[in-house]
Amino acid sequence: MSEVVYLDYASSSRVDPRVAEAMLPYFKELYGNPSSPHALGTRMKGALEESRAKVAWLINAEKPSEVIFTSGATESTNMLLRGAAFRSREKGNHIVASKIEHISVLNTLKYLSKSGFEVTYLPVDSTGILDLEALKASVTDKTVLVTVGYANNEVGTIQPVKEIAEIVHSKRALFHSDATPAVGKIPVDAQKDGIDIMTISSWDMYGPYGIGAAYVKKGSRMEPLILGGGQEFGMRSGTENVAGAVGMGKASELAKLEMAGDAERIAAIRDKMVSRILSEVPYSFLNGHPTKRLPNNASIRFNYVEGESMVLTLDMEGIIVSSGSACSSKTLEPSHVLIAMGIPHVEAQGSLLMALGRFSKPDDGDRVADVLPRIVKGLRQMSPIAPPEVR
Amino acid sequence: MSEVVYLDYASSSRVDPRVAEAMLPYFKELYGNPSSPHALGTRMKGALEESRAKVAWLINAEKPSEVIFTSGATESTNMLLRGAAFRSREKGNHIVASKIEHISVLNTLKYLSKSGFEVTYLPVDSTGILDLEALKASVTDKTVLVTVGYANNEVGTIQPVKEIAEIVHSKRALFHSDATPAVGKIPVDAQKDGIDIMTISSWDMYGPYGIGAAYVKKGSRMEPLILGGGQEFGMRSGTENVAGAVGMGKASELAKLEMAGDAERIAAIRDKMVSRILSEVPYSFLNGHPTKRLPNNASIRFNYVEGESMVLTLDMEGIIVSSGSACSSKTLEPSHVLIAMGIPHVEAQGSLLMALGRFSKPDDGDRVADVLPRIVKGLRQMSPIAPPEVR
Repeated sequence: MSEVVYLDYASSSRVDPRVAEAMLPYFKELYGNPSSPHALGTRMKGALEESRAKVAWLINAEKPSEVIFTSGATESTNMLLRGAAFRSREKGNHIVASKIEHISVLNTLKYLSKSGFEVTYLPVDSTGILDLEALKASVTDKTVLVTVGYANNEVGTIQPVKEIAEIVHSKRALFHSDATPAVGKIPVDAQKDGIDIMTISSWDMYGPYGIGAAYVKKGSRMEPLILGGGQEFGMRSGTENVAGAVGMGKASELAKLEMAGDAERIAAIRDKMVSRILSEVPYSFLNGHPTKRLPNNASIRFNYVEGESMVLTLDMEGIIVSSGSACSSKTLEPSHVLIAMGIPHVEAQGSLLMALGRFSKPDDGDRVADVLPRIVKGLRQMSPIAPPEVR
Repeated sequence: MSEVVYLDYASSSRVDPRVAEAMLPYFKELYGNPSSPHALGTRMKGALEESRAKVAWLINAEKPSEVIFTSGATESTNMLLRGAAFRSREKGNHIVASKIEHISVLNTLKYLSKSGFEVTYLPVDSTGILDLEALKASVTDKTVLVTVGYANNEVGTIQPVKEIAEIVHSKRALFHSDATPAVGKIPVDAQKDGIDIMTISSWDMYGPYGIGAAYVKKGSRMEPLILGGGQEFGMRSGTENVAGAVGMGKASELAKLEMAGDAERIAAIRDKMVSRILSEVPYSFLNGHPTKRLPNNASIRFNYVEGESMVLTLDMEGIIVSSGSACSSKTLEPSHVLIAMGIPHVEAQGSLLMALGRFSKPDDGDRVADVLPRIVKGLRQMSPIAPPEVR
C-alpha cells in the first residue's frame, strides 16, 4: 500500500509516529489509576496533567483545568451543547447554529429541540461564511447558546470567529465552536478568539482515536454528560485513558511547533493540485472560500458526474479521496453544507473532498491531477445527463 | 519497579502484551475510517467487526450486533441506564437497584431521580448477596429497569444473576448488570444468565483504556446517549476507535481461552494469602462471601487501623494495594458497599482491597502476608482507639 495517494485526511489519519512512540510505554510497562494515592497512581496522574497542559498550550487556554479529556470530538460536542443548554435553562431556551454544522452538532440540536429548546439555523453565503447580519438579528436575551464551527470539515471555510464571539457575548450567550478540523491546522486561540466552549479532536491532528477534549472556559455554565467517579474535575467520569491523553498531548505539542511549516508545505501541494484540476477538467469548480480556508482542504465539484463513482474509480487507481463527510456517508443525501451554500442538488452530488495532511507527499497532488481528467471524462461518457460537449 | 508487588488490579491493570501487540499496527501503518467506502475504510471496518464478534463470543451474545463499542464501562452504564429508562417512560418510572452498585450506576440513578424516576435501593446481606425477597417485593408493573452488578468490584461477591433475571422478567422489566469486574474473570453468559443489557469493561480484562462495550440484547428498549453520525448501529456516534476495539477484541479472545486457567492459578495465590493474613494478623476479617466471590478478590478489614495508612505504608515497601474503589477514593467516606453489608463505619475504614490479576506472581501473596503483621501492629501502636491488647 506504500504507493497509495491518501487524500482522505478529513475522514481519518494515520497516527504520527512520534505520538505512537510517546504512547508505547503506556501499553507496555506503565499503568496505575491516576486517582490512586500510591506511587504508580501519582505517576500516571502526572502524565495526565502534563498532557492536559500541552492541549491547553496549543489552544492558549488560560488554565490547563479548562481542558476536559473526553473520548473524542463527538462526545465533546454532545456534552458541551447539552451541558450548556440544560445548565442555562433558567436564562432562556433559545439556541442559534449555522446550517453547515457537523452532523454531531446537528443531531444534538435535534435532541435539544425535542427537549424544549428552540433552535434557529443561520444561513451562510456561497463560500460558506456565516451571515453575520442574520446572526445579529437572531441572538436575543433568551439566547443561551450559539454554535458555529471554527472551520468547515467539508469545504474548509474558516469563519470570522472573533466577530461572531462579539455578537454572541453582546447578549450574554455562550459561544460554542466545533473546532475539530481547525485545531492543530491553523492557529486557534481560545482567549483571543473569544470562545467559551470548544470541541477539540485528537485524530484530526495526528493523535490517537478514542480521545478528544472539551474546552470549558472558567465560569462557563456547564454540566457533565457522563456521570460516575467524578474524574476530570467532575466534568467527565470514567477511568482516565492516560495512554490516549499522552498521545493527544504529544500531538498537541507537535502541532504547536510544526503547524506553520505544515500549513505552508501542505497548502503549496494543495494549491498546485487545485489549479491543475480546475484548468484541466472542464466544468469543475472549487467549493468554499477561495482564501479563507483550511490549508489542507480541497473541495471540488464536477458537473455531470457522481462523487461516489469518482471515489470508487480513484480507489482502484490507489488514490483515496471522499465524496464528503465519512460521518454521514451512509445517507445518500447530498451534503447539507453544499446545499446551504446554494449549490444545486445535482451539482452537490458531483463533489470530491480531497483533504491533505502532514504525511502528504510532494507529488500527491500531481498524481491526482494526472488521472482525474481521464476519469471524469470516462464517467461523463456513461452519464445520461451529460450534454454531448462534455463527453 | 520490577520488584513491586501489584495488588491493585481493581483500580488499574497493565495491558496484556499480546493485546498491545495486536493494537500496534493501528498506531503505525493501518488507518482509515470504517465508514469510508474505499479499500482502507473497508479493511478497518473488517477489523472492527471481527473485534465485535470476539467480544460477543466472550459473553455469548446471540449476535455481534448486540455489542456496542463505547469509550468504557462508565459511558456504557450511563448510556444503558439512561437509554433504557427514558425509552421506557411510557411503561412506568420505577427503577430498582442494589445498594452496593458502582458509583457510576449510583450517580446515573441520582440523575434519573432528578428527571422524574423513582429508585428503590435494595439491601444486601452481610456477605454482599442481594436480598431476593426484597427484590420480589419491590418489582412491580411500573418497574422499567432493575440494575444489579454481576459481581462487586470492592468485595468480590457474585450475585445470583439468573434468579435475579427471572424475578425481573416476571414483571417485564429490563435487567441491567454492570459486569465490569466479572467479564473475563468468570464465565458470563448473557443468554443463559438472562441479562438484557450489560456494562463491559476492556481494561478490567487486560485490554486497553478508552474503550468498553455495552451489550444490548436484540429487542431491548434503548436509545443512544451520544449522537452524531450514527456509528455503532446508530447507538453510539463518533469516529470509531478501531485500535481500541481491536485491543478489546484480542483481550476478549484471550479471556475466553485462558479464563479457567487464570482463575485457578490466581485463586490459589489469593487463598493462601488470605488464610495467612487472617491467621497471622489478629482482629482481621474477610469482607464479602467466603466462596461466591471473584477469583482475584481479597477484601480484608483490620480493626483499629486505617485503610489509607496501610496503603501508604505498604506503598513504601513496594506493595501496591488500595483501601477501596479508586473511583471514589477522593471522598474520605467509608465504602458504601461495606456499610450496606452492615459493617460499622470505623471498621469499614480499616479495609484493604487486594485484587490480583493475570500478571500476579506466585509469591506475591506471601510478600504481603510476610509484612502485614508488622505493619498493622505498628499502626495500631499509634492508634488512639486501639485497646492495649492489640498494640
